[in-house]
Amino acid sequence: MSRDRPPEYLGLGGRLGAGPAPELVAAGFALEMAEAPSLHDGFALADIAHTLALLDAGVLPEGDGARLLGALLEMAAMPSDKFPYDAAFGDPWNSRERVLEERAGPSAGWLGVGRPRREAARVALRLALRRGVLDAHAALLALADAYLVLARRHRDSLMSDSTYLQPAQPTTLGYVLAGHLQPVVRHLGRLEEAYRWVNLSPAGAGGTTGSSLAVDRDRLATGLGFGGVVEHARDAMWQTDGLVDLLAVLAAAATEAGQVAADLEIWASPAYGYVELADGYCRVSALMPQKKNPYALAVVRQGAGAVAGALAGVLSGLRTPTARTDHFLLAPGEVRRALGTFTTCTRLLAGVIGTMSVDTAALAEGAGDPGLVLGDLADEMVVGGVCDRRTAHRVLGEAARAAQSQQRAVTVDDVASAAGQAGLALPPAMLESLADPMALLRRRTVKGGWADLPRLLEVAGRDLAGLRRFGDGAPAAIDSAEAALLATARARATS
Amino acid sequence: MSRDRPPEYLGLGGRLGAGPAPELVAAGFALEMAEAPSLHDGFALADIAHTLALLDAGVLPEGDGARLLGALLEMAAMPSDKFPYDAAFGDPWNSRERVLEERAGPSAGWLGVGRPRREAARVALRLALRRGVLDAHAALLALADAYLVLARRHRDSLMSDSTYLQPAQPTTLGYVLAGHLQPVVRHLGRLEEAYRWVNLSPAGAGGTTGSSLAVDRDRLATGLGFGGVVEHARDAMWQTDGLVDLLAVLAAAATEAGQVAADLEIWASPAYGYVELADGYCRVSALMPQKKNPYALAVVRQGAGAVAGALAGVLSGLRTPTARTDHFLLAPGEVRRALGTFTTCTRLLAGVIGTMSVDTAALAEGAGDPGLVLGDLADEMVVGGVCDRRTAHRVLGEAARAAQSQQRAVTVDDVASAAGQAGLALPPAMLESLADPMALLRRRTVKGGWADLPRLLEVAGRDLAGLRRFGDGAPAAIDSAEAALLATARARATS
Amino acid sequence: MSRDRPPEYLGLGGRLGAGPAPELVAAGFALEMAEAPSLHDGFALADIAHTLALLDAGVLPEGDGARLLGALLEMAAMPSDKFPYDAAFGDPWNSRERVLEERAGPSAGWLGVGRPRREAARVALRLALRRGVLDAHAALLALADAYLVLARRHRDSLMSDSTYLQPAQPTTLGYVLAGHLQPVVRHLGRLEEAYRWVNLSPAGAGGTTGSSLAVDRDRLATGLGFGGVVEHARDAMWQTDGLVDLLAVLAAAATEAGQVAADLEIWASPAYGYVELADGYCRVSALMPQKKNPYALAVVRQGAGAVAGALAGVLSGLRTPTARTDHFLLAPGEVRRALGTFTTCTRLLAGVIGTMSVDTAALAEGAGDPGLVLGDLADEMVVGGVCDRRTAHRVLGEAARAAQSQQRAVTVDDVASAAGQAGLALPPAMLESLADPMALLRRRTVKGGWADLPRLLEVAGRDLAGLRRFGDGAPAAIDSAEAALLATARARATS
Amino acid sequence: MSRDRPPEYLGLGGRLGAGPAPELVAAGFALEMAEAPSLHDGFALADIAHTLALLDAGVLPEGDGARLLGALLEMAAMPSDKFPYDAAFGDPWNSRERVLEERAGPSAGWLGVGRPRREAARVALRLALRRGVLDAHAALLALADAYLVLARRHRDSLMSDSTYLQPAQPTTLGYVLAGHLQPVVRHLGRLEEAYRWVNLSPAGAGGTTGSSLAVDRDRLATGLGFGGVVEHARDAMWQTDGLVDLLAVLAAAATEAGQVAADLEIWASPAYGYVELADGYCRVSALMPQKKNPYALAVVRQGAGAVAGALAGVLSGLRTPTARTDHFLLAPGEVRRALGTFTTCTRLLAGVIGTMSVDTAALAEGAGDPGLVLGDLADEMVVGGVCDRRTAHRVLGEAARAAQSQQRAVTVDDVASAAGQAGLALPPAMLESLADPMALLRRRTVKGGWADLPRLLEVAGRDLAGLRRFGDGAPAAIDSAEAALLATARARATS
Repeated sequence: MSRDRPPEYLGLGGRLGAGPAPELVAAGFALEMAEAPSLHDGFALADIAHTLALLDAGVLPEGDGARLLGALLEMAAMPSDKFPYDAAFGDPWNSRERVLEERAGPSAGWLGVGRPRREAARVALRLALRRGVLDAHAALLALADAYLVLARRHRDSLMSDSTYLQPAQPTTLGYVLAGHLQPVVRHLGRLEEAYRWVNLSPAGAGGTTGSSLAVDRDRLATGLGFGGVVEHARDAMWQTDGLVDLLAVLAAAATEAGQVAADLEIWASPAYGYVELADGYCRVSALMPQKKNPYALAVVRQGAGAVAGALAGVLSGLRTPTARTDHFLLAPGEVRRALGTFTTCTRLLAGVIGTMSVDTAALAEGAGDPGLVLGDLADEMVVGGVCDRRTAHRVLGEAARAAQSQQRAVTVDDVASAAGQAGLALPPAMLESLADPMALLRRRTVKGGWADLPRLLEVAGRDLAGLRRFGDGAPAAIDSAEAALLATARARATS
Repeated sequence: MSRDRPPEYLGLGGRLGAGPAPELVAAGFALEMAEAPSLHDGFALADIAHTLALLDAGVLPEGDGARLLGALLEMAAMPSDKFPYDAAFGDPWNSRERVLEERAGPSAGWLGVGRPRREAARVALRLALRRGVLDAHAALLALADAYLVLARRHRDSLMSDSTYLQPAQPTTLGYVLAGHLQPVVRHLGRLEEAYRWVNLSPAGAGGTTGSSLAVDRDRLATGLGFGGVVEHARDAMWQTDGLVDLLAVLAAAATEAGQVAADLEIWASPAYGYVELADGYCRVSALMPQKKNPYALAVVRQGAGAVAGALAGVLSGLRTPTARTDHFLLAPGEVRRALGTFTTCTRLLAGVIGTMSVDTAALAEGAGDPGLVLGDLADEMVVGGVCDRRTAHRVLGEAARAAQSQQRAVTVDDVASAAGQAGLALPPAMLESLADPMALLRRRTVKGGWADLPRLLEVAGRDLAGLRRFGDGAPAAIDSAEAALLATARARATS
Repeated sequence: MSRDRPPEYLGLGGRLGAGPAPELVAAGFALEMAEAPSLHDGFALADIAHTLALLDAGVLPEGDGARLLGALLEMAAMPSDKFPYDAAFGDPWNSRERVLEERAGPSAGWLGVGRPRREAARVALRLALRRGVLDAHAALLALADAYLVLARRHRDSLMSDSTYLQPAQPTTLGYVLAGHLQPVVRHLGRLEEAYRWVNLSPAGAGGTTGSSLAVDRDRLATGLGFGGVVEHARDAMWQTDGLVDLLAVLAAAATEAGQVAADLEIWASPAYGYVELADGYCRVSALMPQKKNPYALAVVRQGAGAVAGALAGVLSGLRTPTARTDHFLLAPGEVRRALGTFTTCTRLLAGVIGTMSVDTAALAEGAGDPGLVLGDLADEMVVGGVCDRRTAHRVLGEAARAAQSQQRAVTVDDVASAAGQAGLALPPAMLESLADPMALLRRRTVKGGWADLPRLLEVAGRDLAGLRRFGDGAPAAIDSAEAALLATARARATS
Repeated sequence: MSRDRPPEYLGLGGRLGAGPAPELVAAGFALEMAEAPSLHDGFALADIAHTLALLDAGVLPEGDGARLLGALLEMAAMPSDKFPYDAAFGDPWNSRERVLEERAGPSAGWLGVGRPRREAARVALRLALRRGVLDAHAALLALADAYLVLARRHRDSLMSDSTYLQPAQPTTLGYVLAGHLQPVVRHLGRLEEAYRWVNLSPAGAGGTTGSSLAVDRDRLATGLGFGGVVEHARDAMWQTDGLVDLLAVLAAAATEAGQVAADLEIWASPAYGYVELADGYCRVSALMPQKKNPYALAVVRQGAGAVAGALAGVLSGLRTPTARTDHFLLAPGEVRRALGTFTTCTRLLAGVIGTMSVDTAALAEGAGDPGLVLGDLADEMVVGGVCDRRTAHRVLGEAARAAQSQQRAVTVDDVASAAGQAGLALPPAMLESLADPMALLRRRTVKGGWADLPRLLEVAGRDLAGLRRFGDGAPAAIDSAEAALLATARARATS
């Protein structure tokens, strides 16, 4: 069978004469073909499931069906890099059709009955995406675990919190890490929602207004391991809201991972010395033998930019009238790359967090500065009836200024002396709190405060256990559905 | 009380000498002050609730509390444009503090006990946002209603669907509009999720590790009408994941609204003539008296760009280390503007859809072209055993080409003649389907297909009713909570 | 030579013990390795030029230099897909170093003298980019040519311009296309500016504050065919402003190409019928044999989204402190892909424009509508002293309304009759202008108006000739510089 | 004159019956009206110039012209916040037309002769933008000056450069600041290019294909102080490439300013202590009296996000067919806000840089670490024939490891001992270089290296002087052109 042009240029008695322009191959078909490796398995499953549905509907004669299934199973067994995908013949579907015709002869034509090329591509895309989303979920869960483990270990590792990198009140590393954990738990929930959209079946929708064949779309969906059906045919074929939603979750989570990486870069500087990354996450300078660079943090941080760009690009690509082919020329590659970047960078940060060493002495160093608790002392002075808040502020401010003018930290004596000069009687117990930041932390008994940290960690642990059930269950479910589908096909195929 | 400098420059015995640099006022305080009108009510509620919580905790003496509440209620009664907000004195909180000290004297100092400025701002922001999100939800619900009403009316209004603006299979306007409705229903669900985050209370978190005061954060939250508490103090103060999530929902929904507007622009062109916008959504050219421009569609479309820009901007603004003040300098204005743009543009599109006239004759004109059903005919030829698909394609393609070479639509005769030449026997019933697109649509019996449209519309109607219960209930709930809070405060205030 | 770890993990007596973590290879080194094919030639040239500079400076002994050059020339002759690049050993530089040591032995060490790994990468990046920018320039020039040729051909092909797709005043296709040409000419100029930055040499900068070796950076630059030197060493190593600048030019130009593609999609619809794309730029529907889809337009349009996403991503990636490695982890791939997408999509649009057929009768159909010139008539009535503008508007508006109420275009008689009823005497010459749109166009004698079109096209032609001189000259210049460099190296190498 | 509807709804005998829908006013006209203050002066100038051009062309009778000019001058004298702009009547042009008709009666109609509303808006926009661009240029010049002054002052202030915040080679603060200066100089040049586009005149273009009136567009442009004419009428009315170009320059420059602010935040932390911001650029914590927060840096950094968002938004807004009204609904506000944010934030950073105190002792502290020059020593060992590079690396790496294992910096003795053990003879002069980083810097004699810093600063000073000539000259030129235009108008107006 001579084949110097893509099928649709041959089609219809040579409707489009001379084959595609080289620029069209370079800009269009090559772009679609770049997704062939990621869609390869999905195309195979989609085609097999459609064939079985035609058989189930009594539309497709058994003999044609068996031949078709036999050829499709052979194609499914070929790894994507051995499959003769070739942009010169059009998109991946075109290359697949060529192989199918060689192997199944005229029976191959049945695959196009009641199903536009678009439907096959949409089903394959969701089949590929659902694996990608589950990988991202697992990576994010690994990051959450790393935060949780380290938060538990450093529940009492004193440090000073800061804003603008200026020391603020005392806290512990565990409390800070428990804070990073909160949005990760929410993102995991959002990813699960995003998965719900991804894991709905467009299969069997057929053309623009649905198929005329008696295909059972619910059964088709179940066979492919989908969680349900996208019912409206135009919605199933064209809507992309779930892709934007997915990219936004990735972008928000990657951005936060980048924030933590930026913190760690500062914490790993010699001036701070809070943490040191494990060797496997660093590089040595080629020029300077003594320099150990926390390369992994730069990698994590670039990922945030990459995913944000993919989101902006896909949103821009959707700025057309409704139901445009461009959407599915642009989005599949962008989403695939963004998922890959997100997953590898999130795993990387989890590895960094899980293996870095923490210098608790360095952490604690600045946290004992009595200046950090002056705000609390001011509150106590007001609550304890020593004076009004403006006066408290003035007096403590003077104590702080006196110390700072001598380039040293404020002391208990500074405070006592400033209070004395203002004629205020400061109970000794109040002053003592200056000296013991852990005592102060134990008094943070409000809901969600430091003293509540054990409960917060326990709740987070329970939340993660729930999320893990989904994260473990979903891949197993789709594995077994896909295996069952192939087994069914094998049973009905001509070998 | 002389006040030529912002409080924090005066503070601490004049810790920061000369007041803020003019560039800092122009770039920083003015930026924060631009949000004062939108946060005005929220600040008042946050302050009142905090005062009541201090009273409830037995921390704040009744007399100070009563004076404070009295002053705060007076301030709450002042409209924001009459309130002496002035960026020369710092951010909105600074201007409020000045007024409070004038009215409540030393009692004013109690407001800062156990609560950083940041907490007040975070509470006020969520109080403002939750109204904005509910407005957006209501607007989107109005759009959904408009789609649903028009879809019901035009369930049988025949038209041809298209891809690349080339006519594809026959459909009806009602089916197309039902397709637009599907993602809107999903976006409404996502907005409800986004609301859940927005409507959680940061109140009572206090400093970095939670407050030491025995404040009941659950009660504080309930008093402010919040649905719950953001527990971890650092999470409550600093995380922005819900803002990104919210903007992403708005961006996706605005982008789709822009797609529909782009469709309508084409449909309203004289060459198409499918629809005509009601006069109130148009402008006449100032230059050309005969020209009626569908201006509303351009307005809707620009909204999609504006919201996408806000999302990109906020994501870019978050590219720092964790817990940075910049996030809350940038995001509040961007989110406020995006919500406003989204809501007004969505209401506008709902108005356009709800009032435009549809020319069903123009719609139907192209839909009767037998060429549109050749694909279906090919399927039937295969299913009916007339021939294999490749042959069917070739024969029908020849019929189409013959007609096109004469610049006319394909006819039943063309098909019959091409089939005859190929020696195929086409049953008359098959050929008849060419002539009656409605008959074809009635055969689209697959789930979600055209014949399933009544059920799809019914389901959508039920979904919208559920969403409307939330959309109606939530504003009422926060209205009544806020009113109750003010009433409680009035009962305990010195008038 | 045992080689189970990347050099820098081996380095320094095994400074970093166990080699890189697998997550670091997956997320980091693999990302850098993805650029190896595009940087392969540039690395070779950078290394050779640096070796020659060390020889010229009298630093490198001739024997070592000859061995080094010999090995480097061998490596330069290996195609990138045969080169043993392997992310398990680090970035491309690490893989190159391994090969170099195998071939040049201890002489290989000289390559790292006075040059950090970073410098080699920066030089290679600019060498690769300059070819990419020139390709983009050539593609944009091809688009400009296509516009110009078609604009000349259709200078007098009457059509109606439109806003909001509502017909506005008469114009010609040639005038519209000449309008598209204007910004393309400007973008070409901007690309030339962007090239100037790209084509500056970071070579010889050495470490953070410049090299201590007596390397002649001007000579190094000339040898590599660069147009000059980036002088400040930190600027040379770290600044990315030229990349943002480049992406912005691509984004603006791709966005405009997408706008033209969107116009053409509408023009190619059967309802308009203005143009038909050549077959090679279309696809036939797999489902519907009669449908010829202008697929190329969707491809062009998605390109605009892709490039906009790359710009947003790179800008987001730069949101760190200064001089961060992440910038060069993210930007090279994004810029490379954006250049590729831009170039192929621009060539595609040029092909579409250059080969599409134009139906001048369809174009002209609507342009003769007298309604389109009512605005001009109103002007003439005022200028000619017939009445004031408000009156003119009212009278012509009534004529238009009368016609529209009968669903037909306004006629000369409508206008005459409305004028008569208002007691206005309209000179016949004025009325005649209604009937002849070409006569009206010939009266557009203002600078840049329709009557000025021949001059506009001539100017554009001259501008393009100037731009082509750059576009032709620059590639030739770098070809010959690179060839000369290799020849010099060969002359001094040990073969 | 009854006026309950916008002119275009009244127009043509009430062509559009009932006035605009409230949603259209809220979403559309209010959006356009938000730009009235910024466009107010520009509209006045555009209208006056057009009137004078009609008079010059002999089209407009002197009496009508004098009345029109009189009314327009009165309107020009009204401050924008006193002008009765009202979105209920449409866009700013509509409100202006209402006032004009009240003041000039039927003569007002002449203003619409030969000029669509669009032209007035386009001229006004460029008149407003050019002032904004010049302000941005002046702010960026102030930043460049601040860098230059500080770079000169700290030419010899030793510090260690760093990558990943790990100390790298020694440098000086002056050299680092000179590096920040380089891209600023380039951005200033790009802003000048962007100004060239902004400062071209669309005036006199008239409708879609140019005006039929004998208006002298060159003279019109000169009168308005423009640098030239946008010739092609459709280009003049619709193209936005210059806006994207402008936003990209702002985005790149704001991003770099944000990077420097991020550096300064780290440098101002107590752990680093390199710099302290002047009080006027800081805030004191309301909660913690001892805390001085570098608030200005957060403000600068958020600006980068805001401008990047504006760019993404405008690019997204352009994703339509050509020549769409939406572009000019979205871009003017986005560009205005971006210019304002950029200019105030850039001035703020210039203020920070110009007033911060530098602790040269803290800077120098880490720079004397001999470990920082091991890379240089390795080079010298190779160049000096002591050994090959691999050996040098190994030996110095062992010295570094030995020191690090004892938690201390490497010393000259460590190196000498490691060399001895390896049997290498290290000349004392080589070892001495370890101890004197300034000596090392003086040896950076390559072009652009540290020893070249005086020349780099001199060149930058000269570049800035040239840029300042433009920055000073352009505002003066437009001031005098605008004044002259008003004077001409006054001379011909009916007072």
